This record gives sequence, structure tokens and C-alpha cells, in this order.
Amino acid sequence: MGTLRAEVEAHFRGLRDRIVAGLEELETSGKRFRRTSWQRPGGGGGEMSELRGELFEKGGCNFSAVSGDRYPGVPEGRAAPEDAALGVEPPLPEEVAGKPFFATGVSLVIHPRNPFVPVVHLNVRYLEVGDLCWFGGGTDLTPCRPFEEDTAHFHGVLKGACGDDRYARFSRWAKEYFFIPHRQSERGKGGVFFDYLRGEAAWPFVRAVGDAFLPAYAPLVERRRDTPFTEEDRAAQLRWRGRYVEFNLIYDRGTLFGLKSGGNVEAIFMSLPPLVSW
Amino acid sequence: MGTLRAEVEAHFRGLRDRIVAGLEELETSGKRFRRTSWQRPGGGGGEMSELRGELFEKGGCNFSAVSGDRYPGVPEGRAAPEDAALGVEPPLPEEVAGKPFFATGVSLVIHPRNPFVPVVHLNVRYLEVGDLCWFGGGTDLTPCRPFEEDTAHFHGVLKGACGDDRYARFSRWAKEYFFIPHRQSERGKGGVFFDYLRGEAAWPFVRAVGDAFLPAYAPLVERRRDTPFTEEDRAAQLRWRGRYVEFNLIYDRGTLFGLKSGGNVEAIFMSLPPLVSW
Repeated sequence: MGTLRAEVEAHFRGLRDRIVAGLEELETSGKRFRRTSWQRPGGGGGEMSELRGELFEKGGCNFSAVSGDRYPGVPEGRAAPEDAALGVEPPLPEEVAGKPFFATGVSLVIHPRNPFVPVVHLNVRYLEVGDLCWFGGGTDLTPCRPFEEDTAHFHGVLKGACGDDRYARFSRWAKEYFFIPHRQSERGKGGVFFDYLRGEAAWPFVRAVGDAFLPAYAPLVERRRDTPFTEEDRAAQLRWRGRYVEFNLIYDRGTLFGLKSGGNVEAIFMSLPPLVSW
Repeated sequence: MGTLRAEVEAHFRGLRDRIVAGLEELETSGKRFRRTSWQRPGGGGGEMSELRGELFEKGGCNFSAVSGDRYPGVPEGRAAPEDAALGVEPPLPEEVAGKPFFATGVSLVIHPRNPFVPVVHLNVRYLEVGDLCWFGGGTDLTPCRPFEEDTAHFHGVLKGACGDDRYARFSRWAKEYFFIPHRQSERGKGGVFFDYLRGEAAWPFVRAVGDAFLPAYAPLVERRRDTPFTEEDRAAQLRWRGRYVEFNLIYDRGTLFGLKSGGNVEAIFMSLPPLVSW
């Protein structure tokens, strides 16, 4: 696994750099991402990159590579046959609980100021626990004011990157995952979500998802950035952002896992909107 | 239990009316609480009262009385001997799980606009499940900018209403309950918290806690309402309010229980601050 780990970690660092550069090119105000390194007491650490811009009211793009003596997660559920055919294979709890682990990933959430420019999220991650290794992640589009052609573009790029089978299954998984039960509605317009993709075979796919981010998202920003909006649009956006907070704090496994396992609070809450009303 | 239920329900309605009237007297802008009734599909319903004022940027005071065929909660933990001496007696899961239930209560959260006027929360509730009945609730003070004399006044009134033994135990319980693990800090300056106080014997105490609310809180509003504040104070307040959201959405049993059992989303989120930044 050593070779794969080194390759993935280096690629994720580079992906973060390319995404940050691509977003800074769109943020024509001259505002830049600010990088902050942090160390994890148990081993490893990461780099947050935070932008407080004009176009992008708040954006976070975090890289991390951490290790520890005892993996704190317990996988849930078993793969359905169609999942297994795509390489989805949740480990058994006894294979991973309390074992030494390594985890590296890139996490991104962007909250634009203009209500017509969609919110977007991306995560790609690689884990080694005991004798096993797997990938997880996903990306989803959450527009306050949705446009069918934007949703179609975003999903079209993802479908091209994923291939038909994986897109079919992982976009359905995203529909299930990014659902807000107490609102009885999806968080946004979906994307893809996947987990427990075992081993080296999954790496080209996960790399393709990360690489698809800028081509999937940047054209939507260009298309909507100059749409005029009213005070009512802005007020509606602040209320609508509450749903994003509700999802992340009540249901998102990554957020809750991070908080409950002593993760970096600042890095975790970089996903929360800059201004919200209820 | 029928007589107690009728008395408690009538008293809680009256308590809501008195609190709403007391807060409207303080809100000298002329803005008033707006009442909305709702029905619970399973039985019963409630009345929300919401104020969007000048002094009180957002305030909610809800009364509810609901019943159903199957109690969805499962009590956690057993009473320590000192708790049992105060009447705290958690039911056994088999005594309540899936049994018919009745619940009535008053819930209040106030978010003042001025960062020097403290946020406050109150809940008193009465439950009948199967053959058992019990009370729960609490109140806590959460100042953005704390003053020792305010904290002392609030706790002093509570101590008088609770009596020394109950105040000692229930203020310690509040310290444990209103704690934000990922911030490693209390939510605010505490108050009292209690649950599973069995039967009729606990009613005078719970009534006293509800009745103590206005004398505990109103003088602090009068004392701080004209304190001048800067834009920096306001920005700090909006960031600080994030902790309130984090606590309510991640840890508060009442909020999560309400959301996961199909409660009224609007009534539940009346506790969330009007404007928050991260």
C-alpha cells in the first residue's frame, strides 16, 4: 500500500493546489485563499485554505493526511450485489475497529455571495486501516436558485468522469445521502457519493472525480456571477442556507465523526455558511 | 393522573400567557408575539408564539399538549442515590417504550439584538406514559458578554425557587447538560436542568421554576438594554451565536427528538438565532 499511499497523497495535495488556483482565477476581486497548517496530536495534520472573497463569500479547501493508533470509525451496512460489482465493499467492524490507520483527503465547500451562483461541495479521501485500504468521497451541487441547464452540466461532467455504471449507482447514493429527513427534501440537486471502494483498482476513478470538479463547477460560476439579485433574493438565500447547516450538523457523517473524534473544529466548520438566518 | 394533567396543562397555558405579556412589556417598540396553532397528526397540537422585535430580535414561546399511541423515547441512565432522594427516577425502558403517551410543556428561547442582553432558555414539561408520569425541564442563561452580577441574580432567583438541595443538584446537572464537547466549554452561564421527577410531588417545584422565569430574567434585560454596542460587538455576537446552533443541532436531546419523531419543524427551530455567522 506504500506506493499507492504516496501517489494518492501527492495527487491530493496537487488537486488542492489546482482547485485553489482555479477558484482564485474566478475570484477577480484579488482576494486570495489564506493557508493555515495544523498538527493532529495523534499524528499527521493538514492545511486549511480559506477564502473570504467577493464572488466567493466563503470558501474552504482543506487537505489533510493523518494517522493514529486506533481507527475510531465503525463501518455501517453491507454492500448490495450491484455495489460489490462496482468495488464497494464495506469492511467488517472486526477488520478495522481500533486498528492503526492512515487517512488523507481533500474537502471543499464554496458559499458564493450571489444567490444565483450555486453552493458546491467536494470530498475525496483515502483510508488505510489494518490490512485494508479504501476510497470514499463525492461532490454535490446545492443551488439556492436552481437552473436545469446548470444541473445538467454538472451531472454531465460527472457522468463522463465516472462512467455510466458508477454514475448510475453513485448519483443514486448521493440522492439518498444528501437528504434532509426533517425537511423531507434533498439538500440540493445531487451529484455523486461513494464509499468503501477497495484498493488500487478504484484510484483512477477517484482521481477522475477530483479532476472533474473544476470543469463541472467553474462554467456555472461564469454563467451566473453577474446575475443581478435583490435584497429579497439575499434574504431568501440566508434563510435557505439554514438547511445546509442543519444537514451538516445533524446528519453529515464526516462532520459528526470529525467533531466527536476530536478533529480540528475550525477546519470542520469551514463548511458552514458565512451568514445564515432562521 | 387526570386531575394533575388538567391542572398542569392549564397552568402551562397561563404561564405562556404571562411570559408573553411580560416580554411584550419589555419590548417597547410595540412589536408583538404572533400566535400560530398547529395540529399534530398523531393527536393534540400546540401554539407557537413568535416575536420579531427590536429589543428581542427573535423570541419564541411555545405551548404544546400532544398525545399518541406509542411513546418514541427511551430513557437513558439510572438515578444516583442523591438523585433518587430528590425524586429523580428514570423509568425502565420496558415501562415506557411503545406505550400510549401524553406530553405538555412550555418552551422558550429569546435572542436579544443587543449583545449585552443575555440569551435565555426555559422549558418545563409533563409526561404521562403507560402508568407513569414525570416532569422535566430547565432554564439557562447564555450571555454573549457575561456580567458576574447578572449571573448571580439569575442563579439567586433560581436557588430561591428550587430550594438548596434541588438547586445544588440541578445546577450541576445543567453544567453537564449545557456543555459543548467540541468547544470544550459550557454553552453559557448555566441554570438548572432536571428530568424524570416522578408524579404529583414534583409539581410545586416545577411550577416554581416556571414562575421564577420572569423575575430571574427581566431585571437583566432592564439593566443591559441601553448598553451601547459597536459593529465589532455585533459581529462577535453573530459568530458567538454559532455555538448555540451547534449545541441545539448536535447535542440537544429535545431538538433531535423533535426532528427525528416528526415534530413541527418551525416550532422546533424557533430556538435558533435569527442571524448567525461562521
